[in-house]
Amino acid sequence: MALPLPVSLSDTIVALSTPPGAGAIALVRLSGPQAIGLTDGVFAGKRLRDQPGHTLHFGTIRDGDRILDEVVVSLFRGPHSYTREDVVEISAHGSDFIVQQLLGLFVRRGARLAEAGEFTKRAFLHGAFDLAQAEAVADLIAADSALSHQVAMQQMRGGFSQELKDLRGRLVQFAALLELELDFGEEDVEFADRTGLVKLLREVQALVRRLLRSFELGNVIKHGVTTVIAGRPNAGKSTLLNALLNEERAIVSEVAGTTRDLIEDEVSLDGIRFRFVDTAGLRDTTDLVESIGVERTLKRVQQAALVIYLFDITSTTPAQLQAEIEALSLPATIPVLAVGNKMDVASDAEIAAFQSGPNTALIAASRGDGLDELRETLLARVRGEGLDRAGSSTIVTNVRHARSLEQASQHLDAVLSGLAAGTGTELLAADLRHALSDLGQITGEISNDDLLTSIFTQFCIGK
Amino acid sequence: MALPLPVSLSDTIVALSTPPGAGAIALVRLSGPQAIGLTDGVFAGKRLRDQPGHTLHFGTIRDGDRILDEVVVSLFRGPHSYTREDVVEISAHGSDFIVQQLLGLFVRRGARLAEAGEFTKRAFLHGAFDLAQAEAVADLIAADSALSHQVAMQQMRGGFSQELKDLRGRLVQFAALLELELDFGEEDVEFADRTGLVKLLREVQALVRRLLRSFELGNVIKHGVTTVIAGRPNAGKSTLLNALLNEERAIVSEVAGTTRDLIEDEVSLDGIRFRFVDTAGLRDTTDLVESIGVERTLKRVQQAALVIYLFDITSTTPAQLQAEIEALSLPATIPVLAVGNKMDVASDAEIAAFQSGPNTALIAASRGDGLDELRETLLARVRGEGLDRAGSSTIVTNVRHARSLEQASQHLDAVLSGLAAGTGTELLAADLRHALSDLGQITGEISNDDLLTSIFTQFCIGK
Repeated sequence: MALPLPVSLSDTIVALSTPPGAGAIALVRLSGPQAIGLTDGVFAGKRLRDQPGHTLHFGTIRDGDRILDEVVVSLFRGPHSYTREDVVEISAHGSDFIVQQLLGLFVRRGARLAEAGEFTKRAFLHGAFDLAQAEAVADLIAADSALSHQVAMQQMRGGFSQELKDLRGRLVQFAALLELELDFGEEDVEFADRTGLVKLLREVQALVRRLLRSFELGNVIKHGVTTVIAGRPNAGKSTLLNALLNEERAIVSEVAGTTRDLIEDEVSLDGIRFRFVDTAGLRDTTDLVESIGVERTLKRVQQAALVIYLFDITSTTPAQLQAEIEALSLPATIPVLAVGNKMDVASDAEIAAFQSGPNTALIAASRGDGLDELRETLLARVRGEGLDRAGSSTIVTNVRHARSLEQASQHLDAVLSGLAAGTGTELLAADLRHALSDLGQITGEISNDDLLTSIFTQFCIGK
Repeated sequence: MALPLPVSLSDTIVALSTPPGAGAIALVRLSGPQAIGLTDGVFAGKRLRDQPGHTLHFGTIRDGDRILDEVVVSLFRGPHSYTREDVVEISAHGSDFIVQQLLGLFVRRGARLAEAGEFTKRAFLHGAFDLAQAEAVADLIAADSALSHQVAMQQMRGGFSQELKDLRGRLVQFAALLELELDFGEEDVEFADRTGLVKLLREVQALVRRLLRSFELGNVIKHGVTTVIAGRPNAGKSTLLNALLNEERAIVSEVAGTTRDLIEDEVSLDGIRFRFVDTAGLRDTTDLVESIGVERTLKRVQQAALVIYLFDITSTTPAQLQAEIEALSLPATIPVLAVGNKMDVASDAEIAAFQSGPNTALIAASRGDGLDELRETLLARVRGEGLDRAGSSTIVTNVRHARSLEQASQHLDAVLSGLAAGTGTELLAADLRHALSDLGQITGEISNDDLLTSIFTQFCIGK
């Protein structure tokens, strides 16, 4: 890394690296120049400073005469460690009392309690990995589905970083040629072939845009899809919710207006978390509690990632359906899937009035008919373009990365329109520099303290 | 160990050994003959079977083509491990998803999910330590004060076991001589010197009784002391509770009968946990809620380890106090400490009527006067004889151990009275064998499956 190392790297930091609470084992981790020396000062066993790295040592930790615990110490010598510094991990009995005693002991002897994410931050500052990889560590820990795990793992192992490096590499050479032209000032030379540059910029722009589009899916993989089920009273919304969740989550009755509170629960479809929200049926009502429920429904619909508008095939005409969906006044960014229920009791004519398709599905919620198809339709809606690529290609999941890509894309556009308009080298070079900087910020080749702090404080302590 | 190893030891067991939940690191532990082989089958890195013990190895865990995680593997080769078997500890990212994937992977490949305490049980079965030491592992993890930590640590490191071994050793020789006399049947020889035996039995009995007495303190150290504060309305019970806890826990007012619910909280005095319970003032009342409170107070007092009877010096005579305490009908096993409040507003004559002493203390709860002395008095009451020994000598904290010691003591008494009454060798030898067996059960020299199961199922999974 070209970054000057901040003063704080001269400290030795210490933290509990396993979740708090009683358990078999608690790991206390130290990293820094004094990690081995400080441990030697309290460890009765082999002299750690004389031992090779990647070894394990049994002994006791003592505070003066008092034995705090029998432990196994893992010894890592920098740069062959997570942080690239000397690292000691103390495997103690999993008691909060013992952990507090150990942390207190090391702090009294000169270690500093680590801040959230500080081990990973040190690994980044020492060049163990770039910023996008470091961020993936937090994503990996938070991953709760096969897909989010897979995307985080690929990012942690540098897949995304490599793609960005390739993009930057292709631009850097042209950027250097443009800078060279500037050096020659008024001589009006063109080292950089403008036709080749346009071709390259279009290719890079296409890749950046593909990454940006993947963010829609990435966001869904990471945060799930809030899907609000709306519709008239007695359309069968609670029955549908229960069927999708495979449990009797909402109370179902023949009485219109049974559901008044919003009822929510999550289910994972093919690795993507859907948060389904059952709502009060939409109608004019004089019942106070129900009218509050209707109000909440209308509000919640506006916050959805996807709306299922459930209607009763036997009592709804296509024109009514269209009017009801329009009455929701949804912004264009929230897609609506119209789902016709009660197919099992509908006449052929009623069914024929509605065609299954990308925006309409027909089901019989109480019997489970059409639910598999509905699930497929839901998945197709959220996967969109990223569908086939989830397994093999890079998916952007981080809003910071998406923002940088967006800015890079705008600067690339500026270069392209500048070239078309015959703009001078100076402006072209400036826009290209901006685009390079935007891409560099993702991996942290260009970074600053505030950015690092905002990233690493989102980590847990001890990582 | 003389025990035949049960069949289950041929399994390789696996469990999460750190507390569940998101964190920096999760440790998955395997133990058994296949621990290294199973890991090699899924670990991309060095071949673990070719590596020496007590070493650390970085690599990835793969489920087919899918990378589950980047991990560091700790390799322990039996008998140089916690369980004395081959042990592998996998340090993975602290995500429940990853942990579930790892456990599932190893189970599919032939490992078995470990039962609670099964690693420690295996360590015991392989003779790594005795039963009293194994039980101390669980105590150590549960320890939440300096004193309980210290007592558990001493027991885990074999202090108590050594003391028992010494006791048994001294008895075994005499027992052997008695058995020898039995072998000679009708020849009426006396190999065992009866005078020496009596002397020895008295010494051993004294030691057993000291251990038994230490259990009272041990129990307090392990479980804390439930101290119920009772007294008439407006005696200042809630004020005293707040003062002892150093916080405004209970609502205090001039109105008699302010407290109706039982209010409890803990505070640690000199390493011993006191659970103080504030109660409704004791009086006849027509208020329904208050009368339920009074009823609960009387019930709770009967479950206390210690009762503080708080009275108002300015409105109570010694005769009234005595009558009120007697009205509680406490069993002799629950000590009562009479505490006179409002010393600050009492006349000299009123104060003179009550003498501070081991059973009476005088305070001014609202000003904090006399509270340090009250705390000292409370500590002295629960420490009792064990007071000076807490730091240096063995303290029994386990109810199973206390029960075995109690039985050993009874059998030793039987031998002693048999000797005094000139009982025949056969009965003496039988009682002595029982005493030896009682002592042997504590350390598990004598044990059975039911006992082991009941002990180890109290452990957490992964230990």
